[in-house]
Amino acid sequence: MKHRILPIAAMAALFAGPAAAQQATPGVSSYVMNTLFIVFCGVLVMWMTAGFAMLEAGYVRQKNVVNQCAKNIGLFAIASTAFIITGYGIMFPGGSWILPGIFGYEGAIAIEGVVESSADFVGRGHAGASDIFFQSMFCVAVASIVSGTVAERMKLAPFFLFTAMLTAFIYPLQASWTWGGGFLASDVGFIDLAGSTVVHVVGGVAALTGALFVGARRGRFVDGKKMPLGHYSLPLATIGTLILWMGWYGFNAGSYLSFSSDADAANVSRIFLNTNLAAAGGVIAAAFVSYFREYRFDLSFMLNGALGGLVAITAEPLFPTPFMSFFIGMVAGLILFWAIQLLDYMKVDDVVGAIPVHLFCGIWGTLAVALSHPDATVLSQLSGVLIVITYVAVATSVVWLLLKETMGIRVKSDTEDTGIDENDYVLSS
Amino acid sequence: MKHRILPIAAMAALFAGPAAAQQATPGVSSYVMNTLFIVFCGVLVMWMTAGFAMLEAGYVRQKNVVNQCAKNIGLFAIASTAFIITGYGIMFPGGSWILPGIFGYEGAIAIEGVVESSADFVGRGHAGASDIFFQSMFCVAVASIVSGTVAERMKLAPFFLFTAMLTAFIYPLQASWTWGGGFLASDVGFIDLAGSTVVHVVGGVAALTGALFVGARRGRFVDGKKMPLGHYSLPLATIGTLILWMGWYGFNAGSYLSFSSDADAANVSRIFLNTNLAAAGGVIAAAFVSYFREYRFDLSFMLNGALGGLVAITAEPLFPTPFMSFFIGMVAGLILFWAIQLLDYMKVDDVVGAIPVHLFCGIWGTLAVALSHPDATVLSQLSGVLIVITYVAVATSVVWLLLKETMGIRVKSDTEDTGIDENDYVLSS
Amino acid sequence: MKHRILPIAAMAALFAGPAAAQQATPGVSSYVMNTLFIVFCGVLVMWMTAGFAMLEAGYVRQKNVVNQCAKNIGLFAIASTAFIITGYGIMFPGGSWILPGIFGYEGAIAIEGVVESSADFVGRGHAGASDIFFQSMFCVAVASIVSGTVAERMKLAPFFLFTAMLTAFIYPLQASWTWGGGFLASDVGFIDLAGSTVVHVVGGVAALTGALFVGARRGRFVDGKKMPLGHYSLPLATIGTLILWMGWYGFNAGSYLSFSSDADAANVSRIFLNTNLAAAGGVIAAAFVSYFREYRFDLSFMLNGALGGLVAITAEPLFPTPFMSFFIGMVAGLILFWAIQLLDYMKVDDVVGAIPVHLFCGIWGTLAVALSHPDATVLSQLSGVLIVITYVAVATSVVWLLLKETMGIRVKSDTEDTGIDENDYVLSS
Repeated sequence: MKHRILPIAAMAALFAGPAAAQQATPGVSSYVMNTLFIVFCGVLVMWMTAGFAMLEAGYVRQKNVVNQCAKNIGLFAIASTAFIITGYGIMFPGGSWILPGIFGYEGAIAIEGVVESSADFVGRGHAGASDIFFQSMFCVAVASIVSGTVAERMKLAPFFLFTAMLTAFIYPLQASWTWGGGFLASDVGFIDLAGSTVVHVVGGVAALTGALFVGARRGRFVDGKKMPLGHYSLPLATIGTLILWMGWYGFNAGSYLSFSSDADAANVSRIFLNTNLAAAGGVIAAAFVSYFREYRFDLSFMLNGALGGLVAITAEPLFPTPFMSFFIGMVAGLILFWAIQLLDYMKVDDVVGAIPVHLFCGIWGTLAVALSHPDATVLSQLSGVLIVITYVAVATSVVWLLLKETMGIRVKSDTEDTGIDENDYVLSS
Repeated sequence: MKHRILPIAAMAALFAGPAAAQQATPGVSSYVMNTLFIVFCGVLVMWMTAGFAMLEAGYVRQKNVVNQCAKNIGLFAIASTAFIITGYGIMFPGGSWILPGIFGYEGAIAIEGVVESSADFVGRGHAGASDIFFQSMFCVAVASIVSGTVAERMKLAPFFLFTAMLTAFIYPLQASWTWGGGFLASDVGFIDLAGSTVVHVVGGVAALTGALFVGARRGRFVDGKKMPLGHYSLPLATIGTLILWMGWYGFNAGSYLSFSSDADAANVSRIFLNTNLAAAGGVIAAAFVSYFREYRFDLSFMLNGALGGLVAITAEPLFPTPFMSFFIGMVAGLILFWAIQLLDYMKVDDVVGAIPVHLFCGIWGTLAVALSHPDATVLSQLSGVLIVITYVAVATSVVWLLLKETMGIRVKSDTEDTGIDENDYVLSS
Repeated sequence: MKHRILPIAAMAALFAGPAAAQQATPGVSSYVMNTLFIVFCGVLVMWMTAGFAMLEAGYVRQKNVVNQCAKNIGLFAIASTAFIITGYGIMFPGGSWILPGIFGYEGAIAIEGVVESSADFVGRGHAGASDIFFQSMFCVAVASIVSGTVAERMKLAPFFLFTAMLTAFIYPLQASWTWGGGFLASDVGFIDLAGSTVVHVVGGVAALTGALFVGARRGRFVDGKKMPLGHYSLPLATIGTLILWMGWYGFNAGSYLSFSSDADAANVSRIFLNTNLAAAGGVIAAAFVSYFREYRFDLSFMLNGALGGLVAITAEPLFPTPFMSFFIGMVAGLILFWAIQLLDYMKVDDVVGAIPVHLFCGIWGTLAVALSHPDATVLSQLSGVLIVITYVAVATSVVWLLLKETMGIRVKSDTEDTGIDENDYVLSS
């Protein structure tokens, strides 16, 4: 506990006499408000890590659930550290471009020093550390997307190395193109407020290349047909999804990065509302599809419907009307259905459905910006998403290939059959 | 990410010279503060959805747990959408009363347009969208209360239709009487700050009529005696309860709807403290009762004690002293005990105990307003709660009856015996 | 819902004419900002209760999991009540010292009355009730630490009585020495911002004395060797850890107690960032240790690595650089490894590893303050932690001894063998 005594500002007001009392304190600055908003949104985004962990623990089979939890806690630590070491500097090069608009690096981490007095950081929008914290939580999400797809057969050590490469270099480089003032923002006119492409498509492509390099689980496709393999616990997948839903408010709203003017407050509130309606639209579309095709409500499809809707509204959660947001979410729910068929046809084994949710609904959401944002065109949006997909596909393939050729990325066949937990983990203390 | 550059307000301050630097920015408005408070409280109320889902998943039997999760994710999507389509306009008619004080409808949804400049919404307390978001999360809670009671034997499709009717019409109409400036507020003098009656009694009555129309689970009452049927997972019920406890701070405090003056800050802090003490009182009363009657501590009774205390303090979390709040919670814990006996005697099968918690403790909390609020009388409180109970009992009975007579509301007997999950859900992907 | 009409302040602005419109409202006070910050941090700290509950439910064996949940919900209610009755007054005696610097009691609880108008509490840093709420959630954490260590063999009734003594007297008394202006702060120069010692070492010592008085579980040590006893659910332990990680932001940042000046915003943001990096450092160190010793990643060791890092950064989350924070967390992860060996050697049975995490990493974190805080010395830090350890060891031993000699603290042997749940709890409703 720091202050059991009066804070300096309040004491000053006490001694300043009636004129000052009229105006009380000099007023809370926008720097303070924006920072408060960003750190609390950062907490919500951090919470998504737990959502991914529970979602994935719920969807894998019991024999691999401990391994999946270790994967998630490990990637959180690695991603949030690796991003801070090099990622943040690459993502926001400021003026320090080496290849203008394409690659830059800002060496100094923009954290204010520890300040004792009532310093006035006029001219900065918010505290540097609040942004680094928030952005590092964002970066964790990218790695979390990959972790579910490649579950139940990838070794942990290469996955952790991949995570480090993804979060230290691959993700922040392309993020600099859109959010760091690079060529996608300035030349292509690409718009992606909270990251349908910059975060979710990137994670989805990395998951797809990972699934291709590691291959399908043994027994997943038999005679060209997808076999059901079972889940550990759908209630865990449910709470995981609801945690992600909750955290997504912070993901989308926090990306606005300010909450100090009346306009900010109105706009950010609209983001909360739109984000929720897109998730609801995704659930309802998925419920309809499963009900009219199979005369039942398919829980895991409805859960992924929520996530698909959330991914889709992420590129532009501000400009759509609430009803358009609901519609964007509904379309995402329908896209999911076809995307799952397509992946099955291609024999891609995605344990949790992360590729339909993050890659396909992310593309849809990115294009849908053109429906509402006055400055967006389908062409600029499409160009942006294709450039990012191409880059991430190449970059992640190189890393997966290197890992595969050196240390190997897949567990032994009998480990996979008996379960990674039994081989690597002893349920003891 | 929107601003990687300086926000406009901060830049203006930079160029405004020393006089402006003195006062920095024009000061954060109460509109901004109230809106920030409301959206974060809305996130906490949303989180209660996960609490209800885990509580109910924990209390049902394993054979129905997937169905119960699907019910909760579906009702969340439906309720938060239906409420926005018609509910909000009915709940807050503004001046657009059709039957004055009883029924009105404000067609235009009060959302500020997307604003680029630093608009000044002086004269509005908070952003329209923040309120719509918050209120729609409130409305979800009403439907969640019903879902637990009728678990393990009701079909999903009619439950979802009931949810739509409840949240689009039944709940918002009576809410307009108290919170929308209707006759209960203006004529009866009924006071219910955060909804012991407006939310919890309403949910409890809808649960009760649902339980009566759908009937008890097979094997619940044998020769007039209640049989234990078992639970899937009490740890899930525990985290569900703790999630609800956490969300309830936002439920009660957020209902204050402002956090901009010193008085607001002091009052809302008191609501946090009182809310917590009422929950603690409920737990402690339940612990004592179970310890002295059975020489053991009954977990599910203690969990419901917490919820009963929370429901009871909801009508008036501000005016009671902390010790009175604790007392209100303790009484709720005792009421639970008798309410459970009464329902057993009446052969009402309530899977999670939602009727004792939300209906009975809600009535107690509503009457207890008279203990602390200077303007409340037992008579006005009792009148209000009886009017609401009567209305909701009739309205929900009509809907249940219609659903029962048309599509049927109960699963087949053998589906119930083998479990809804085995019949409707395949544990596959 | 309180205001459907305009709040008073906003209406005043409407009528105040152009001059006032310029400055809009008189500006939000630091009292409002600090209070908002504290109540939301309090919610995060409350959430840690759920983290401890799930962590402990995950680590115990299935036969005791219901008992462990009842222990956690009960201790939450008892601790948050007992602390408010006497604890807060002892912890913050203000000027009312009886033995100066050692024991005092402030009888009047410092809550502002219910205020209708727009009162101006100039001269107070934040609302009294916000602090009481926040501090009571802190106090719950102390009791939660004990509950995991003594799991699976301690009776609930004596544990609850111990909790009441710990939170009403033992914890707040020593907290007054550091945070209430007592002799550790003023004479020894002891510094502990958020409680590596004041909370975690205290909880760890109480857990250690509890483990010594209650003895090891039957079958834990056979022929001087530790036997693995198994866990109920490592996914629950994982979500418990992630909940604690999330709540810890509020724990450390909230201890700063103010968020109104630019300096506050910068400093608190730094606390968020440092807290996260210390946790990440703990995970990574634990991962390395387990990988290089056993060629596998040990989930429960990584989870405790996160918690050890969090405990270690708690004493001083502000002054270290981000990289030093990461280092402090890594060292905590290594300390854990040796601490576990030491406890095994001493035949101390700690079900969840709370003593290594909270006691040993707490000591490390307290000493590490000298690495970054200009006013801290190793000597003053060491003196403080030794004084607190000695006091808590004696005080808790007296209470455990009294409970053991009067009502007994351990369940019967056959209850322990068959499981407490089967004897005390019936899985019914």
